[in-house]
Amino acid sequence: MTIDLQVHLLPSLVSEEQLRGGVAVVIDVLRASTTITQALASGATAVVPTATVAESHAAAAAISGFSQSSSDSPVPPDVRAKAGVILGGERSGTLIPGFDLDNSPMKYTSSIVAGKTVVFTTTNGTQALLKCRLAARTLVGCFSNLHAVIALLANDSRPIHLVCAGTDGIVSTDDALCAGAIATGVWAARNWPKWHGDELRLVMDLFTCRCQPMREVVNTLRESHGGRNLISLGLEADIDRAARWDLFRLVPEFDLATRRLQPATDVPAEPKQILMVPRE
Amino acid sequence: MTIDLQVHLLPSLVSEEQLRGGVAVVIDVLRASTTITQALASGATAVVPTATVAESHAAAAAISGFSQSSSDSPVPPDVRAKAGVILGGERSGTLIPGFDLDNSPMKYTSSIVAGKTVVFTTTNGTQALLKCRLAARTLVGCFSNLHAVIALLANDSRPIHLVCAGTDGIVSTDDALCAGAIATGVWAARNWPKWHGDELRLVMDLFTCRCQPMREVVNTLRESHGGRNLISLGLEADIDRAARWDLFRLVPEFDLATRRLQPATDVPAEPKQILMVPRE
Repeated sequence: MTIDLQVHLLPSLVSEEQLRGGVAVVIDVLRASTTITQALASGATAVVPTATVAESHAAAAAISGFSQSSSDSPVPPDVRAKAGVILGGERSGTLIPGFDLDNSPMKYTSSIVAGKTVVFTTTNGTQALLKCRLAARTLVGCFSNLHAVIALLANDSRPIHLVCAGTDGIVSTDDALCAGAIATGVWAARNWPKWHGDELRLVMDLFTCRCQPMREVVNTLRESHGGRNLISLGLEADIDRAARWDLFRLVPEFDLATRRLQPATDVPAEPKQILMVPRE
Repeated sequence: MTIDLQVHLLPSLVSEEQLRGGVAVVIDVLRASTTITQALASGATAVVPTATVAESHAAAAAISGFSQSSSDSPVPPDVRAKAGVILGGERSGTLIPGFDLDNSPMKYTSSIVAGKTVVFTTTNGTQALLKCRLAARTLVGCFSNLHAVIALLANDSRPIHLVCAGTDGIVSTDDALCAGAIATGVWAARNWPKWHGDELRLVMDLFTCRCQPMREVVNTLRESHGGRNLISLGLEADIDRAARWDLFRLVPEFDLATRRLQPATDVPAEPKQILMVPRE
């Protein structure tokens, strides 16, 4: 079966219409994809992505049954806590005033997010997610759930779109490297024709050059636009975390009707390992 | 000396302002860059790039001293011939009605263009060229003049921008591969720091994966967006021509004041060969 897989190095390089009816995988390795996956793996009930801080407050208010005085008035912390709502995300890479958590995946531990609803807004990742509203299915991919994503895509006959979030409108190799890893894995799992597009070739060749050893993966992430931003903020540990492969067999899936991200229910119990994990 | 070199996979991914004061190299391997280089190497006095067909007619009229009845009325062939003006270019890859030559480099032979002024309009390449009006210097690069371009850039301390034309707004690996070749050559000629941007890494890794042997270079060009378009038009020979390295030691340079492309006068007589020409 011929599979149509395209890579989009930035959300601006694909139209909503192109995604119609396909399977979109949103990739924002540093850090939204990694953090969303971590939050759900830590037992969060759902992640609710929002485009703006005001929308976050509005979503938190709706879930908490709290009547806002204005569109951006925050829900009091005790009301949120009682309703099990966590405000998470970042602007310029750092904690948003009044929010509970920033965008560091390691902050989203079970003790903090299990059983809670995480309302989540970031600069690049959630924007990319909201672009995919015409896709038949929208998933979130990163290194943390690499083979789980590959397993879902390898069993889907619809057109596949790997949508890299980029960093502030600029191509970022952290996302491109992960897109290359996913594409290479799906490619290896399927009997494909030779050619699948120019951006696909770029990310697959990047992956070929940068996937071994693990030091090279981490360095590629460090040296990406997104990685350099994190280093300037003292957040290098988040890069190391985002570089880890297959921590979870969980793929966040976006339900447009409920506007929630929850774990896809059809991930195989033991996703087939196709790509060799880079040696340390 | 630290050199700033950036790659832009599409003209839309760079602003005119970013190019200010730098050296821009416009790359449209299939085929505008290759054809412009060939035309000047065949002895054309100048190439005048224009954005539209109407602008081509206007430029031809101005050079011929012909008074147009309307902005898109063509100059009669005998008047153009007397003034030594050739109309060249393409729309949708093919000859524009009333023009003398399409965008096939092999058509621009000495017997046809020597001593003539070529007024030239293409879908992607000339548009990219006209975007670089704030650059301190604008050059045209392709495989045909690879080491001549590398030689000029290796001796320039200003920021360097490799601007890929792409194909109809889509990233194209023919241009990306050439950008990777130029970047790798300049890199090898200079003592650079390690990191130079995410798009740069993508094209350098593409070049690493696809530069050997020549068959792989030609296949990469064939399989690019631009290449597939040409094959569908029966123009595969143009791809083989565009893949040839170092046919000329000539670099077209755009003079904003006269709006003409003419050979840069500072190309070394024997550009140092840095990259190994792919074996056949």
